[in-house]
This record gives sequence, C-alpha cells and structure tokens, in this order.
Amino acid sequence: MQLVDVCTPGGSHAEISIAALDASKHVLCEKPLANTVAEAEAMAAAAERARARGIRAMTGFNYRRVPALALARQLVAAGRIGAIRHVRACYLQDWLVDPEFPLTWRLQAGQAGSGALGDLGAHLVDLAQYLTGQLITGVSAVTETFVTERPLAGGAGTGAVTVDDAALFTARLGPGTVASFEATRFATGRKNALRIELNGDRGSLAFDLERLNELEFTERAVKESEGGFRRILVTEPDHPYLAAWWPPGHVLGWEHTFTHQVRDLVTAIAEGRDPEPSFADGLQVQRVLAAVAGSAAHGSRWTPVPHPSGKP
Amino acid sequence: MQLVDVCTPGGSHAEISIAALDASKHVLCEKPLANTVAEAEAMAAAAERARARGIRAMTGFNYRRVPALALARQLVAAGRIGAIRHVRACYLQDWLVDPEFPLTWRLQAGQAGSGALGDLGAHLVDLAQYLTGQLITGVSAVTETFVTERPLAGGAGTGAVTVDDAALFTARLGPGTVASFEATRFATGRKNALRIELNGDRGSLAFDLERLNELEFTERAVKESEGGFRRILVTEPDHPYLAAWWPPGHVLGWEHTFTHQVRDLVTAIAEGRDPEPSFADGLQVQRVLAAVAGSAAHGSRWTPVPHPSGKP
Amino acid sequence: MQLVDVCTPGGSHAEISIAALDASKHVLCEKPLANTVAEAEAMAAAAERARARGIRAMTGFNYRRVPALALARQLVAAGRIGAIRHVRACYLQDWLVDPEFPLTWRLQAGQAGSGALGDLGAHLVDLAQYLTGQLITGVSAVTETFVTERPLAGGAGTGAVTVDDAALFTARLGPGTVASFEATRFATGRKNALRIELNGDRGSLAFDLERLNELEFTERAVKESEGGFRRILVTEPDHPYLAAWWPPGHVLGWEHTFTHQVRDLVTAIAEGRDPEPSFADGLQVQRVLAAVAGSAAHGSRWTPVPHPSGKP
Amino acid sequence: MQLVDVCTPGGSHAEISIAALDASKHVLCEKPLANTVAEAEAMAAAAERARARGIRAMTGFNYRRVPALALARQLVAAGRIGAIRHVRACYLQDWLVDPEFPLTWRLQAGQAGSGALGDLGAHLVDLAQYLTGQLITGVSAVTETFVTERPLAGGAGTGAVTVDDAALFTARLGPGTVASFEATRFATGRKNALRIELNGDRGSLAFDLERLNELEFTERAVKESEGGFRRILVTEPDHPYLAAWWPPGHVLGWEHTFTHQVRDLVTAIAEGRDPEPSFADGLQVQRVLAAVAGSAAHGSRWTPVPHPSGKP
Repeated sequence: MQLVDVCTPGGSHAEISIAALDASKHVLCEKPLANTVAEAEAMAAAAERARARGIRAMTGFNYRRVPALALARQLVAAGRIGAIRHVRACYLQDWLVDPEFPLTWRLQAGQAGSGALGDLGAHLVDLAQYLTGQLITGVSAVTETFVTERPLAGGAGTGAVTVDDAALFTARLGPGTVASFEATRFATGRKNALRIELNGDRGSLAFDLERLNELEFTERAVKESEGGFRRILVTEPDHPYLAAWWPPGHVLGWEHTFTHQVRDLVTAIAEGRDPEPSFADGLQVQRVLAAVAGSAAHGSRWTPVPHPSGKP
Repeated sequence: MQLVDVCTPGGSHAEISIAALDASKHVLCEKPLANTVAEAEAMAAAAERARARGIRAMTGFNYRRVPALALARQLVAAGRIGAIRHVRACYLQDWLVDPEFPLTWRLQAGQAGSGALGDLGAHLVDLAQYLTGQLITGVSAVTETFVTERPLAGGAGTGAVTVDDAALFTARLGPGTVASFEATRFATGRKNALRIELNGDRGSLAFDLERLNELEFTERAVKESEGGFRRILVTEPDHPYLAAWWPPGHVLGWEHTFTHQVRDLVTAIAEGRDPEPSFADGLQVQRVLAAVAGSAAHGSRWTPVPHPSGKP
Repeated sequence: MQLVDVCTPGGSHAEISIAALDASKHVLCEKPLANTVAEAEAMAAAAERARARGIRAMTGFNYRRVPALALARQLVAAGRIGAIRHVRACYLQDWLVDPEFPLTWRLQAGQAGSGALGDLGAHLVDLAQYLTGQLITGVSAVTETFVTERPLAGGAGTGAVTVDDAALFTARLGPGTVASFEATRFATGRKNALRIELNGDRGSLAFDLERLNELEFTERAVKESEGGFRRILVTEPDHPYLAAWWPPGHVLGWEHTFTHQVRDLVTAIAEGRDPEPSFADGLQVQRVLAAVAGSAAHGSRWTPVPHPSGKP
Repeated sequence: MQLVDVCTPGGSHAEISIAALDASKHVLCEKPLANTVAEAEAMAAAAERARARGIRAMTGFNYRRVPALALARQLVAAGRIGAIRHVRACYLQDWLVDPEFPLTWRLQAGQAGSGALGDLGAHLVDLAQYLTGQLITGVSAVTETFVTERPLAGGAGTGAVTVDDAALFTARLGPGTVASFEATRFATGRKNALRIELNGDRGSLAFDLERLNELEFTERAVKESEGGFRRILVTEPDHPYLAAWWPPGHVLGWEHTFTHQVRDLVTAIAEGRDPEPSFADGLQVQRVLAAVAGSAAHGSRWTPVPHPSGKP
C-alpha cells in the first residue's frame, strides 16, 4: 500500500492527485480540493475510477477531526438540537492587516485560486455541510480586497494582490435553514477564530477553534430557569478520538486534527472502506466556492449551487 | 416644556409624532422610527419644521447609551482602531422558537412593519452607523419566516405570520468597509445577544449585550507577545455616563440605557441643542431596512441605500 | 410603621440600632452588624426584645438578594449539588493598591472595626453560611496590612492604617465541608470580584459578582460526555425576583440587590414575619470575623466559632 | 550519555534516582521529588555529588513549561506586575467524587506519600515559587479525607484511604506576599483546573490549565478607562517555546509541557548546564509539603518552612 499526501498549492492538486490515483496510490489531498470546479470534477472522476480498484481518496478537511466538532456532529445526528434554523460561521485571522506583509503565493490567484474564501471559507463550507448533514443550495456574496498592492517577497517593488482578502456570504441549506459565512485575514486580534454556531428548534451548539477543546451546548428541554449554554470540555474518554489520549481535562493541540485524520484514513484503507470527506465532498465545497465568487462578481445576486446529482 | 414619548407599535409612530411636533411638543419616538420610508420622511420633515421653533425630536435607539458602546464610539472616533475593515453584528433572541407562541402584534406586518428586521436589525444598523461614523451604502439580504402560522392570542384558530423571523444581510459602509448583519428570534439559548465587533487596521472592539458592562478592546500597537483582547469593565468614573453611578465594578442594568437616553434628551432640550439620534438618523436607518427588504424580495441583489443628501 | 436604615460606620451600629428597636422602630442595619461580638450580642438581644412587640430587625447582607445567588440557594436546598465538599470564596477589589490613597474611616479600626475582613469578608461568610445552610465551626487565618502609613485626607502628613488590607482563612462548616476565604482590596485589576464556588458530590455552582446576572451550574447526573458548567443567565421570569423585571436576557444592575432587600423587608413587616438575615445571623457572622482575627493574632491556630446555641 | 526518567510512584523515587546518579546517568525525576523530606534530601545530595562529575538532575515540574506560564515568569521577572501582594492558586480535579472509585496506589500513603497535596499541591507550590521568584516561608493548613473507605481494585472488600482528598493552606512568601492554596480531587465538574493568579502593585496575571494557551494580564499603567485583563493567546512566535511550533492561534496540547521539558533538559545536558528545576528545588517543595502536613496535624498552627540555606 502506498499513500500520497498532496500538500502543494491548490493549482497543482489536480495533476498530482489524478496521476497518483491512476497509478493506484491512495491519496489524501489538502483542501480546498482544487482551484476550479473543473479540476475538482476531474479529481472526483479519478477518485471514482480508482475506487473500483480499491484505491481510496480523501479531502483534507482536518477540522472534521476536532473532537469537539465530531461531538457536535454526533449531537446533531442524534436530533439533539432538532431542526436547524441557523448556521453562523466565521473564520477570522489577522495576518494580512499589515500592508507591508509580502505578496506570497497565497495572494496570487494563479496558484491559490482564491484568498480567504478558499483558504478559510472552504473549511466553513465543509463544516456547515458536515455538521448539519445538509448541502448548501444557494448563496449571495460580497468579497473585498482591502490591500491591492503588496511588496514582492524579494524586495524589488510591489505586485498586485489578485485574490480576496475577505469573503462574506449568506446561504440556504435545506428548507428552513439559513446561514451566514465570513472568512477574513483582516480581523485584527483574531488569530485563528473559526467560530461556528448552530441554532436548532431543540437546542444550539457553539464552537471556537481558539478554544478547540470546548463545545458549548444548550437544550430547550432543560427548564428555562436552569437553561444555558454548557461548556463541555471535550476531553472525556467517551468523546470522539479521546479514548487514545490523556486523562480528562488534559487538552489536545491543533496538530491532532491531522493525527486523527490520518488515523481515520489508514483505518479506512485497512478495512477497505471509503474515508470521509471524499473527493466528491471536496468537489461539492468547490461548487459552493465557485457560486460565492460568481455571486460576488454579479452584484451579490442569488446563485444556486448545483446538486451532486445534477438535479436542481 | 412638554415632551411626548411615543412607544406605540410602529404603524402609529408617524401620526402621533407629527401631531405632537406640530403642536410644539418635544418628541422621543421609539425605534424603528416608522414602518415605511415614506412615514419616516414625513416625520423627519416634521422634525425639521419643529426644529425651527426650538422643538426637539429624538429617535429612541437606546443602545447608543450603553456605556460600553458609548466608550466604543469614543475609541473609534479617536482613531484607536484605525480604518475599519469589518463590522460583524448580530442580534440573537429565541422567544419565537416555540411554534405555539401566539400571533402578537409584533408578528403582523400591518402593525409592526417587519419582524426581527425592524425590531432587532434596526438596532444593529443604527449602531453600525453610529460606531463607525459611516453610512451603509448598499446591502444584499435574505429573510426567512420559519413558522408561518401561529395560534391566535384569543385561542380561536391560527393566523398567518406576515413578518420575517430572521433577516441576514451583507453590507458596505464607506470604501473598504464590509459588514455582516443578522437579526433573529430563533437562536435557541440566546436571550438578548446583541453582538457587535469592529475590526480596524489598528485595533478591534467587541461587545455583547448579555454582558453589557463589558467592552473588549485590542490594539495592534501592543507588541504581539503581549497582545490580546482586554476586557474593560465599563464601570469606572471616567467612562461615559458612569460618573453619576456606583463605584468601579458595581454593574449597571439594561434599563439605564433609557435613563441615559432621557438624561441626554432633557439636557439637550434644556441647553437648546438637538439630541441624537435625530429623526433624520432614524429615517436613514429606515432606508437601510427598506433596502434589506427590497433585496430579499429580489433574489438578494445588491441594493443601494439612498444617501441623505439625495446624491448617489 | 417606622423604619430606620442604619448606614453609618460600624462603630455606631449598636447604639443607633438598639435605640431604634427599643423605640419600636423596625431596623435595617448595614453589614457587618457591628465592630465587636459584644456589640452584636447586644443588638441581637435588642432585636429579640423588639420581636416580642412585632418589631422587625434585618442585617443588610444585600448579596443574598442577587437573583443568581438566590437561585444558587434554591438549587442547594433542593439537593441538586448534593453534600457540599468545598466552598471557595474570595472578594477581590483593588482600590487600595495605590499607596497614596488617603486614610479614610474605612482604614481606621476605631470606626471600621476591621478592614477587608469586615467590609468584604463579612459578605463571604454570610453567603457561605446562607448558600450551604451550614455554619462555620472553626477557622485558621492570616491577615496582612501591605501599606501601613497613608496620607491623611486633609493633606497634613500621614497616619497609621490600623486595619487589615487582606484576610485569608480556611474554615470548616459541617462535617466533611472545608472552605477557603480571601478578602482583599489589593487585587490589581479586580474591581468587584466576589466569587464563590460550591462543589458538592452531585454538582457544583460558581458565581462572580462582576457578572452578577450569571450562575454557572453543573450536575454529575448529566453523562460525562455532555457534562460541563452551564451558564445560566438569571433573567427568566421564574428566577428569584425576576417576575417583576424585564424580559429574558435584559440584565439587572447591582443596585437592585438593595431593591430586593427592601422589598423583602417591607413585605415581611407587612405580613408580620421576621425578615432574613436576622440580627442573630449578623451576630453569627461577627463571631466568625472575631475568630478570624483571633486566629491571625495567634499564629493561625485553629479557632472554633461558638455555636448560636452556646453549645460547642 | 544516558538518561533515566523516573516515573514510578513517589516511594521509589529516591532509590532509583540515587542509584542512577551514582552510576553517572542523568536523571529526570517525576514530581513530587519524594515522599519524605529525608528522601528528598538524600536525592539532592546525590544530585550534588553527581553534578561534580557533570551529571545532571532535574525535577519534573512540567507546568513550568506551559508557554503561558513561562511567559508569566518573564513578565514577573521584568517587573511588569511589580511587587507581588497575592498568590491565589488552586488545582481542582473531580475524579474521586464517586465513592465507588477504587483504592489505587495514589490513595495509599505508603506508595503515594500524600494525596491531592503531593499530586496536585506540589505543582502549585513549585509554580508559586517559580513565578514569583520567592520561597514560601511558612504555612497554615487544613487537610481532609472525604471518603475514608474505598473498594479494593480486585473487587474483594474495601480498604482505608490513607491520604488526603483535599489540602487547603495559606502561606507567606517574601515580606508582604500572602498566598492561598487549594488542591482537591473532589471539585465536581473541574477536570484539570490548575488556576493561579498573581496580584502585584503594578499589575496582575491569571492562568487556568483548562485553557492552557491563554494568559490573562493587566497593568495599572494603562489608564483606568481602558484597563482590564487582556487575554493573551500564547501562540505567537516570540512566546516561550513557540518558535518551533505552529502559526499564531494554532493551539498546543498538554503533552508538550513534557516535550518542552525534555528539550530543555537535553539542551542543558548538551551545553553542560544545570537544568531547572533542580533536585534542590524539588527538595524545597518537599519541605513545604511537609510543613503543610505538619500544620494540618497540629491544629493548623503556623509552620515555618526551613530555608535551603539552613538559616531561619
């Protein structure tokens, strides 16, 4: 068994992944799956072909493997927060606030595809779909590039920033579920604040990646006078992924999202199962990103996201 | 001196306020100023006429008088957070989650004009404009009514909910300032969470009405290793409105937003000044609400908000 | 009916209160009840005499009337946290950190009796006994005066600080309940942090006066994977004192601890009942304070607190 | 170079460590260094002998290597919080609340020496001395065993718990510094809450191990209206230990306290320096623990802690 882990800039994901899959290597590809829907479609097709030969492909949305978010998914799937009314998701960083920060590959459309949208927003889109078990059906978006010229890394002059610095969009998932999304690298003081909140008709969940061992959970069933968001420290042995780790209260770090991802991948390979998220899941995220970019380019107009089945 | 405090449902604000102003009574009118832009325009015109006779009119956006938010305005005005990149505002309540909650006047368009948009979103719009010192220039919106039929209050059958349960919109203020807004009464577990965060290129501010005595503030000027949001307990004698209250750390309640509002109003009347926010300010908020409703009704298309000057 | 509210420095509480009670006035006396146990005993005796004539006396431990703490008492009394193992209480302020702060009456033993101990610690002692329903049976203490000379208020030279700046003590309540207490005015950055946590064998409660509308509560009965302290926003109509106030999530301020206190007092007078806390309760707190001072003066030795019954 | 890592129960630390040192192996010994002062003295003497041959010994107080606590030490050492008035430290866990939890070695004095005192309290004592740069000079203590009989692990009957379930003590460090300590395994709902707060005359610091990537810091120098505890997310490249880790905001887990400890140890060995904390530091902590036990056994009387120099 051989496994290729594709960690290059997005523009080369398709070429590498397809070659590896066609050569019967299992593939773990970083998110976002590709820079375009067309590339992602080709990758998903390659994954489907490889699958027939027992070759596995996985998209590296590592935040599905944060124990607190895996627990959130369990609670939603068990109906604990009921029908979901609201998704409220933002991913806030601040490393581009300084206009003297140089023009790296992440700021160039040719290599990165998009900016905050693909880098940060892709996580939000995947998590929203994963946690709710629903797909985003349409979006309305605004994007912005606050600093349009930056110094070249080498020091010789400046170059144009060709990606978004921030992307904001509203969305709908299934009937009766609305969502707001925001991805930015200009939120001064927010270092890695991936925040997601779900409000259902029976309860709510809230999470912040800066406190990745915690999940907030409230249920309407608790009588009002005793209600309130409870802070679950997701370090108990019966929490997802925790059986193999430390005693309660001894927190995990960010890197173990990758540890868990690889563990799930190699377990799936060993057991002959398809790992999740699949390349098809990655493709669907790509369709949402493309719809966001399209809406932003056309006066924020409502832009449907094609369904995987090809049906409207 | 006589003063009329207009606290009726929005549909009667115009008639009462205009009559009072024309009869040379000072007027404090609850927010939102009216149910339609036309009504608000008539009210602003009446206020302008009355002003010539020394009669004052004020819109009751009481949250400008939360000491923490007044402090936030001072910090922004002093340039402490620099050029504002992001406004992120939501007002989350949950009192409509139960589908058996009856059909009160607030759920009927004829009396209330709109739902969460006018009741909660109006506060967000006013605060965003007040805190940044900028006007919203355009919006893209989604609205939703999750529960479309509710029991009549009397117990005989059900009636149609004719207002929004939730309103989400993106917006632009001045050049290079983007914003996201969300108002809902379906955020299970959130009781009165008016949250607003401003990210500037020199610092950030964050506030939550459920902790109304606190303001979070961070500055880039602090060296990175010592940076972080500081929690200012806004109860010091040199904080806005606090000189008249308790010792440091002895917190204020919600009702004093009204205490401060009335104090500012009667002081302005006594000193022959115009109180803020004016009816013109209330009208401008109304224009934003109308643009939100219009955008939502037309596939979320980008909808400009007319400038007070009449210029584009 | 006449009522005397005794708000003078502690040294005059006994004279005023006893005179008022003997003249058949109801009395509300500020905490701590007196500067010495002997004074407090005389006051409790006067209250007992007056009681026979239907005259009521109350000690002004206003923090029993914080809704969140009244709710905490309800939960403890209902057995919701089980047998209490730990009480952890501190009251942290910082207004004496500056050595130039002048020598006011609160820093002179003759008028104030003690320093942080009587001013802040008295609240902790009363709350610990009120919330647990148990009495403190013994203590071991350390006290400290960090700044021993301060400027006289008039500006002419300095004077000696004759009270404690900080008091720390361990204690026992009923069998199997241990406690730690700390009162200080030198906790830089803490403005009014009265914090109390109770750990029982079935659950725990935690409170901080700087966020006086919130109570944290956890129960062991919740399965471990869903456990965690929940933040109850104590603003629901079925919370103590809240039926008369604002809608959920609209927070109360510090002053309403006094509003509730007076409401309970006049209601008790009207209904011919004894209000709580009584002068006997205030006397018992005084005995604890005296034991603390005695222990601190004798090498922190364990110092029993006499039981109200006179029995050991 | 050979290194022995002593992770056995405390009763065998001395034998193993001394043998290893005498055989010229470097030694990292888990905390607390020993079960008795006599053992710790023998170990410190062995370390001193070995040191002459270039052999290094280190006590495993791993929490000195939490980046947030290492940063706290830097800030204190730089005078940023001034003269320290208060240390407030507790270590709260809850894994013994259930009376059916079996009688493991940690609950038997023969192997563990003490209970919460040595297991948890030892960390607090070391941190208090490390962070302040001062030694504890005396203590007054209370200890308690809430559940005195527990099931034997094998299932056959019960056995006596011979260690403390909780230890509370007050202490003094240098002149004008008072401290409170509490260690317990009965704080229901607290999983790993090592909390330490320092109040100085220029500022304060606060930390909670359940949020180990965060340090709260406030300074008096900031004007009152802008003051407040700031939450430093200790993940910046210029934070202690962070240069080798992830980008800002990407948090570390508990295990890296050990990673950092070993890195510092092997670096010290390679560079021919003595690592910290030394066995002498471990011995001094042991003297404090012995004084705590002694005070608790003698009516909480004030019990001096011998100075390392042998002078009073």
